[in-house]
Amino acid sequence: MLTMQDALIRLTDHWAGHGCLITQPMNTEVGAGTLNPATALRVLGPEPWRVAYVEPSVRPDDARYGDNPNRLQTHTQFQVILKPEPGDAQELYLGSLEALGIDLRAHDVRFVEDDWASPALGAWGLGWEVWLDGLEITQFTYFQQSGGLTLDPVAVEITYGMERIIMALQGAGHFKDIVYAPGISYGEAFGQAEYEMSRYYLDDADIGTVRELFEAYAAEARRMLDARLPVPAHSYVLKCSQAFNVLDARGAIGTTERARAFARMRRLAHDVAGLWVERRAELGHPLGDASTPPAAPAAPAAVPAPVAVFPDISAHGTLAVEIGVEELPPHEVARTADHVAGELTRALEEAGLFTDACEVHTYATPRRAIVVVSDLEPREPDTEQVVKGPRMAAAYDAAGEPTKALLGFARGHGLDPADVRPVTVGGGEYAGYVRTVTGRPAALVLGEVLPRIVAGLRADKNMRWNAPGLSFARPVRWLLALLDEHEVPFEVGGMTAGRITRVHRTATTSAVSVPDAGALVPALRAHGIEPAAERRRTQVIETAGALAAGVRGAIDFPGEQALVEEIVNLVEEPVAILGSFDPAYLDLPEEILTTVMKKHQRYLPVRGAGGGLLPYFVTVANGECDHDAVRAGNEAVLRARYEDAAFFFQQDLRSTPEEIKEGLVRLTFAERLGSMADRAARIRAIAEELAARVELTGDERRALGRAGALAKFDLASAMVIELSGLAGTMAREYARRAGEDEAVAQALYEMELPRHAGDATPDGAAGSLLAVADRLDLLAGLFAVGSAPSGSSDPFGLRRAALALTAILRADPRLAPVTVGEGLAVAARHQPVEVAPEAVAEAERFVARRLERALLDEGHAVAVVRAVLPHAGAPAYTERAAADLAGLLKDDRFLRLTAALQRVLRIVPGGTAPGYDPALFAEPAEHRLHEAFTEVAKALPERPSLPEFTAAAFPLAHPIDRYFDDVMVMTDDPALRANRLGLLAAIRDLVDGVLDWPQIA
Amino acid sequence: MLTMQDALIRLTDHWAGHGCLITQPMNTEVGAGTLNPATALRVLGPEPWRVAYVEPSVRPDDARYGDNPNRLQTHTQFQVILKPEPGDAQELYLGSLEALGIDLRAHDVRFVEDDWASPALGAWGLGWEVWLDGLEITQFTYFQQSGGLTLDPVAVEITYGMERIIMALQGAGHFKDIVYAPGISYGEAFGQAEYEMSRYYLDDADIGTVRELFEAYAAEARRMLDARLPVPAHSYVLKCSQAFNVLDARGAIGTTERARAFARMRRLAHDVAGLWVERRAELGHPLGDASTPPAAPAAPAAVPAPVAVFPDISAHGTLAVEIGVEELPPHEVARTADHVAGELTRALEEAGLFTDACEVHTYATPRRAIVVVSDLEPREPDTEQVVKGPRMAAAYDAAGEPTKALLGFARGHGLDPADVRPVTVGGGEYAGYVRTVTGRPAALVLGEVLPRIVAGLRADKNMRWNAPGLSFARPVRWLLALLDEHEVPFEVGGMTAGRITRVHRTATTSAVSVPDAGALVPALRAHGIEPAAERRRTQVIETAGALAAGVRGAIDFPGEQALVEEIVNLVEEPVAILGSFDPAYLDLPEEILTTVMKKHQRYLPVRGAGGGLLPYFVTVANGECDHDAVRAGNEAVLRARYEDAAFFFQQDLRSTPEEIKEGLVRLTFAERLGSMADRAARIRAIAEELAARVELTGDERRALGRAGALAKFDLASAMVIELSGLAGTMAREYARRAGEDEAVAQALYEMELPRHAGDATPDGAAGSLLAVADRLDLLAGLFAVGSAPSGSSDPFGLRRAALALTAILRADPRLAPVTVGEGLAVAARHQPVEVAPEAVAEAERFVARRLERALLDEGHAVAVVRAVLPHAGAPAYTERAAADLAGLLKDDRFLRLTAALQRVLRIVPGGTAPGYDPALFAEPAEHRLHEAFTEVAKALPERPSLPEFTAAAFPLAHPIDRYFDDVMVMTDDPALRANRLGLLAAIRDLVDGVLDWPQIA
Repeated sequence: MLTMQDALIRLTDHWAGHGCLITQPMNTEVGAGTLNPATALRVLGPEPWRVAYVEPSVRPDDARYGDNPNRLQTHTQFQVILKPEPGDAQELYLGSLEALGIDLRAHDVRFVEDDWASPALGAWGLGWEVWLDGLEITQFTYFQQSGGLTLDPVAVEITYGMERIIMALQGAGHFKDIVYAPGISYGEAFGQAEYEMSRYYLDDADIGTVRELFEAYAAEARRMLDARLPVPAHSYVLKCSQAFNVLDARGAIGTTERARAFARMRRLAHDVAGLWVERRAELGHPLGDASTPPAAPAAPAAVPAPVAVFPDISAHGTLAVEIGVEELPPHEVARTADHVAGELTRALEEAGLFTDACEVHTYATPRRAIVVVSDLEPREPDTEQVVKGPRMAAAYDAAGEPTKALLGFARGHGLDPADVRPVTVGGGEYAGYVRTVTGRPAALVLGEVLPRIVAGLRADKNMRWNAPGLSFARPVRWLLALLDEHEVPFEVGGMTAGRITRVHRTATTSAVSVPDAGALVPALRAHGIEPAAERRRTQVIETAGALAAGVRGAIDFPGEQALVEEIVNLVEEPVAILGSFDPAYLDLPEEILTTVMKKHQRYLPVRGAGGGLLPYFVTVANGECDHDAVRAGNEAVLRARYEDAAFFFQQDLRSTPEEIKEGLVRLTFAERLGSMADRAARIRAIAEELAARVELTGDERRALGRAGALAKFDLASAMVIELSGLAGTMAREYARRAGEDEAVAQALYEMELPRHAGDATPDGAAGSLLAVADRLDLLAGLFAVGSAPSGSSDPFGLRRAALALTAILRADPRLAPVTVGEGLAVAARHQPVEVAPEAVAEAERFVARRLERALLDEGHAVAVVRAVLPHAGAPAYTERAAADLAGLLKDDRFLRLTAALQRVLRIVPGGTAPGYDPALFAEPAEHRLHEAFTEVAKALPERPSLPEFTAAAFPLAHPIDRYFDDVMVMTDDPALRANRLGLLAAIRDLVDGVLDWPQIA
Repeated sequence: MLTMQDALIRLTDHWAGHGCLITQPMNTEVGAGTLNPATALRVLGPEPWRVAYVEPSVRPDDARYGDNPNRLQTHTQFQVILKPEPGDAQELYLGSLEALGIDLRAHDVRFVEDDWASPALGAWGLGWEVWLDGLEITQFTYFQQSGGLTLDPVAVEITYGMERIIMALQGAGHFKDIVYAPGISYGEAFGQAEYEMSRYYLDDADIGTVRELFEAYAAEARRMLDARLPVPAHSYVLKCSQAFNVLDARGAIGTTERARAFARMRRLAHDVAGLWVERRAELGHPLGDASTPPAAPAAPAAVPAPVAVFPDISAHGTLAVEIGVEELPPHEVARTADHVAGELTRALEEAGLFTDACEVHTYATPRRAIVVVSDLEPREPDTEQVVKGPRMAAAYDAAGEPTKALLGFARGHGLDPADVRPVTVGGGEYAGYVRTVTGRPAALVLGEVLPRIVAGLRADKNMRWNAPGLSFARPVRWLLALLDEHEVPFEVGGMTAGRITRVHRTATTSAVSVPDAGALVPALRAHGIEPAAERRRTQVIETAGALAAGVRGAIDFPGEQALVEEIVNLVEEPVAILGSFDPAYLDLPEEILTTVMKKHQRYLPVRGAGGGLLPYFVTVANGECDHDAVRAGNEAVLRARYEDAAFFFQQDLRSTPEEIKEGLVRLTFAERLGSMADRAARIRAIAEELAARVELTGDERRALGRAGALAKFDLASAMVIELSGLAGTMAREYARRAGEDEAVAQALYEMELPRHAGDATPDGAAGSLLAVADRLDLLAGLFAVGSAPSGSSDPFGLRRAALALTAILRADPRLAPVTVGEGLAVAARHQPVEVAPEAVAEAERFVARRLERALLDEGHAVAVVRAVLPHAGAPAYTERAAADLAGLLKDDRFLRLTAALQRVLRIVPGGTAPGYDPALFAEPAEHRLHEAFTEVAKALPERPSLPEFTAAAFPLAHPIDRYFDDVMVMTDDPALRANRLGLLAAIRDLVDGVLDWPQIA
């Protein structure tokens, strides 16, 4: 049996063997190996650094007196930093698992998207959690920023959670049962310390003393910064952080204090990082400079190799392009391949290599985007190029003989002067000639196009790695480009394209040479990889379905579409494996069980005939493996998670919702915006204020009152702290069990809706109002404190909130009286900070943009959406208007009216006041328009729908047209001109706000 | 090349392979691996524990900005704890050196006595520093006490100093040049931290803040003790200690504060230890109980095996006994063997096995005590034993027939009743018989005697180890006992005696079977070991002398006798190796060079014809080795030490003695007794006060004044802080260089004399007075605060001080007016604490006992010493009296006088008042005695020498004898009796104090 200490020794040996410096844990308490200066400071700056060390990581909040099987106040991390990232860190990592004796072919090891960000450290990175049979055993991150500084070179951080790994390998059910060394268990070695330090952190630490320590540490850190000593400064920042964590675990941190402390620690950490970088530069970077060389100045250059290296095919050929990547986030998989296919097709079309005969096949897996194009033209078409010489006038003398200029031109181009012809260029006549330019071979064109496409890859969240000029969701690791049997040579980001593809990392030979373009996909299939997502989807559905059927169950594939899609994009070779769990857990609320299965484990739940859960699940491994081992591993993970969940559930049930809600005061919401308790109180108040504007039954009003009083209480429940996705669901569950009215329970649930795009919106008025108030509070507050989203950063989910707000307002007719702007104004009044009018306006514009995007995503034409956007404040109206407008755009009368109104709007200068004097009318058309305007103005209902407006306003169309035909608006007579513009301005004002008329093409 | 990180990995592997748990460094700063709870707490209590870990040890005081080649604020310890000590820890340790690639046969690895004590932790242990070619690379300690608690089982602590080991193995001259890992040096990896943390500790730490931290930590530790949580309490004690060390490095700790802080930390550490032990007991000792089983109740039992196992020889035989031990302190080597030989001889004599024909040969090395006895009797002599039955009166009836009692007795002893004879026992007549008891075989006797001798081994400082019932300087590891070719079987302390001896640990076969008693010594010699100390001495002198001669030098063997003796007792096979050093170092004061060579390295200095040092030394390795390697290693050590010394010397010379003296305020002397500066001031004042009682010249008085002002200044010099043995020597050197009078310089030197028993005493009056004042201050102060020595604990060296005091008073006639008691009284008046009269009296008795011991050691008879002890307050007089008394004991007149006086003293009851009335005399003898008394009283000079007293008092002898012949002192007449006793009491008082008369046999 591999003991824990052997495991640490083996990892140490493994990484020492791969050039890592082995250092010691930090000699002050740290929450994670990342904080050790060997990581926190060394990832900064240009110097290379490879290090590995054990880090007993102290998390006072995780103290459980040693009782919880999986949670410890001190757990053991094994930390590795590879800087610059070496290009094969995943492979080195897998080697370390083999060093631990893990048979990678028997087990299901996967890299599952998990990005990391520590706003407190100004640090973030992209990467994965590594799963071993469903168990998260390692965090694997490409560091992008630390201490607010962009990292170059990029470092890989690999953090092993040793207790979990060893528990899995030893089959231990409790960390205390781990065999730490021969003859001694983890509990025997560290059990007493675990208990006593838990006591200290949870019960006995003296709050006043620790608070003093925090202050002393922070002051000393600042002093050391002033003394330009980043190393002791960093040490004191760590002590600060530990003191804070102790206070937090003791429940002694109020909202204001938390915000202030965070800000202080963040500032210190940033300053330490900056100072460290400066100091290393002053020392001349003793370890060298490994920063990324700058990419070629413009677009990544094509290979500056002779044209001859590019193969030249003579017949129509097949092109296969494969961009090999490290495991993409599932939602980027299809998108990436589609993007490449689109870009490639467009470039080929532009080059004239793409014809109707061509077929494009796109394939996408987490590790590759493949585009295969058949029947590609072998060369660009030939083109003719006009070469211009001297002007005709200067080309021949009076005698018609070639001048010196012409002779020089001819000589220069190797022409017989007799072959020179007159050519017309830009309207001028020149002596010149027409040259036929032979089209370039397809490969040469591709050699230019493909690097551009690779360099142009972008995702939602992009990272840099050790590849100059590239930036993408995850590192690109190989490039295959074949034109028939020929390699298309090019280089980009330090990689050279070729004919090598890579198959499963566990394959005997993981790099495979592909003979020709057509062989790529078959070669992958021969190695078990299914590049086509739709085929993988079929495999998942068929095999998982069959396994479920085998236990007289079924999987709700339509209901699980998103999960299936995710699974399809998590594996290259779906291997479904059925697992089971103790039926006793079925007593837990279903949402808990399915949340754990789906969100956390990506398992497909198995349901019985009546739709109820069965104690089974299907997990989909990546490639063939030892099914029994993988099943056992996944079952153990699920068991541990359900055990935790059951514990939390029972714990929560011991308190009433009110009691649970008291915990909200300890949950920070945002700097300057108070705690979650403060926020819950605001939501309640905003909802009540909005409720005054809408019609509610007495029952609805009572439900609102009670639900408002309990709003968000479940955020403080153990279950939701653990599984945040269950917010609302647990509120309903706990409210019901506490004997609250169903309407109240339902409102507490519905106020969290919709949780994502496409999710249901509240049914009940109380839920609707609370849900809207929730989002209004979020938007008003965060825009007020300057935390609007920027770029890809949206830590508070304001985009989602805006979308949810509009979705609810669109869905619930009862809320029609509530506009976004008014709602934000109400919410603004309840904020603990001054909300500037500009902030409200900005928030309103932000919501409008989300609505615009939503409508576009729903398939509305751009022109339509833009035209109805003036109504964005009332999303329900906007939605109807968009639908109406789409219909009206097929209505001649509407189009005539629109054209007429656009003529009006075009001619009236901005700022023109409406108003006119009929006495000044000089033409009959003026009288006619005046009459039509007067009648239409009378006939228009208040806030008409578009069809109503069209019907009422159509009588204006003809008079307007006539008016412009007969009347010279911009006459020289100023009085006359003013009167005429005044009439048109009145019409303008009449139709203003109905639509953004100019947007209609 | 072995990198530092490989070395750590190899040590980890080695100790993991020997059952050690591998843990991590402490996650708060510690000064040594010993403080990590994996040692500090786990060595307590009965539970077994084996652990190994790396400990980066933080010593703020050692911060040198990374400039010093050998000194770091954070150095790397590798720490091993084996509990219980396994019996072969030295061998396991040597295996670890081999794991580091060290060829033990090429190098000179030695275990050199170095005991460890941390009064602050209430901890101590005995052990060694391990030398690799003269370099201290490891501390090896058998822990005896920790946190004030006696440890059972005893643990072995092995602490490797990694930087030193690696520097030696890599031949690096500066720690920064260590290759830490392939391609990266120690300086590159840790240089910046070393610099910055040095800056923090020496210059930039905020004293106020760190002082607050100290208080906060101490308070939190106390709180955790109150909460019965030893683990967090210990952690806070460590933080306390680090805060203290930072303050100390910043020079911010005053005397009072230091004393208070130490007391506080000691109390906390003790309480943590006690609480830990309690808590582990409450938890039921989860790791088990490995405490030493109690020894057999009485003396260690002889083997309860049948007599048959003891061999029975028929002729005179040879006995060889070997007690194998781990390396003894040199001064215990001969003493141990002599003790064993003495005890054995005495026991054999008692048993009648030892005759005049027997020869006893004793051999002693650091690892063995051997006694060989030839011509031993094969058996005890037969003896006759009287067996008593019933009283004669009850044995035969009136008819002379045997009674039932007699018949029963006879039956019980298997006798024919006719064989029963009358026997006399205790004056009574019994029926009985005389039985001849056959003497037991010698082996059987030895089987009883030898375990008693082993169990009775005792040294100056004794330790326990995993051997029930044994306690000695170092563990006994094997026992050999052969009677001719027969094993003498016995068991003691868990060991069984046999015929196996052990030779060099590096031998191919380190355990050797010895065929017979006579073969032991030859067998050892055959394996290179010379068991005879005198032969080793000759080898050292011859070979070292030859090497010195080879460079035209010589070794002052008479002058280096003590060092030669130490060397002889440090090795079993002396191999002299000549080394050299840079002649540039000869510019340093010679005492520095020789102190380093002799005290620290046990090198023999080589001198030229004129007696001056040559740049050579001879080291004596233990057994054959690669001379070049060992030479190079030792030369490197010496170079580093001289480099340090030169640095300190130059540093000191930059300051005047007065400036250096300012540093005394930062040196603590003792709790409640202030700093060294305070003590120096007291010494000066005491010396001045005593000077008033003696006659001094003006020059002497001036020298005393100036030397008093500078007294002890060199204790604050860098050199003496480093090499404390140079105290006085450096004072003289620096004083001279500062232009002080030679008399002042000399007085500063002499005030430290004598430094050890047999050392010179001061010549000058100023030096004498200061030296005496120094010791008086020490004794008065420490007895006042209750720090008198107890048992083997004498941390302040009070025994040495008392001895020095008497030595000076004996040597310097100028000081005759100064008695110990008066001197102590003067010193007491200058103490900063109240000195109780009992404390002074106790100190005086303590000095008297040391004088007694010294006189005995010098060969004076016990009776003589005891008799003269009343004069101990004036040691010079005492010494003369002892010499006189020894002579007088051969003088009949003195003996007659003594006998007479003893008669007087015997008869006079204590408390009898002197005085009589001649009118009441009834006998002529009374008158005669009265007359003699009156004349003698007149004739006696004041404070007569013994011969003077004898001459003057002899006339009393005859009258006293006659008095007792003629006069009935204890007559029934009370008046008469009182008068007679009054006369005798007057005589008693006359001779009182001259000698302790009853002591004279």
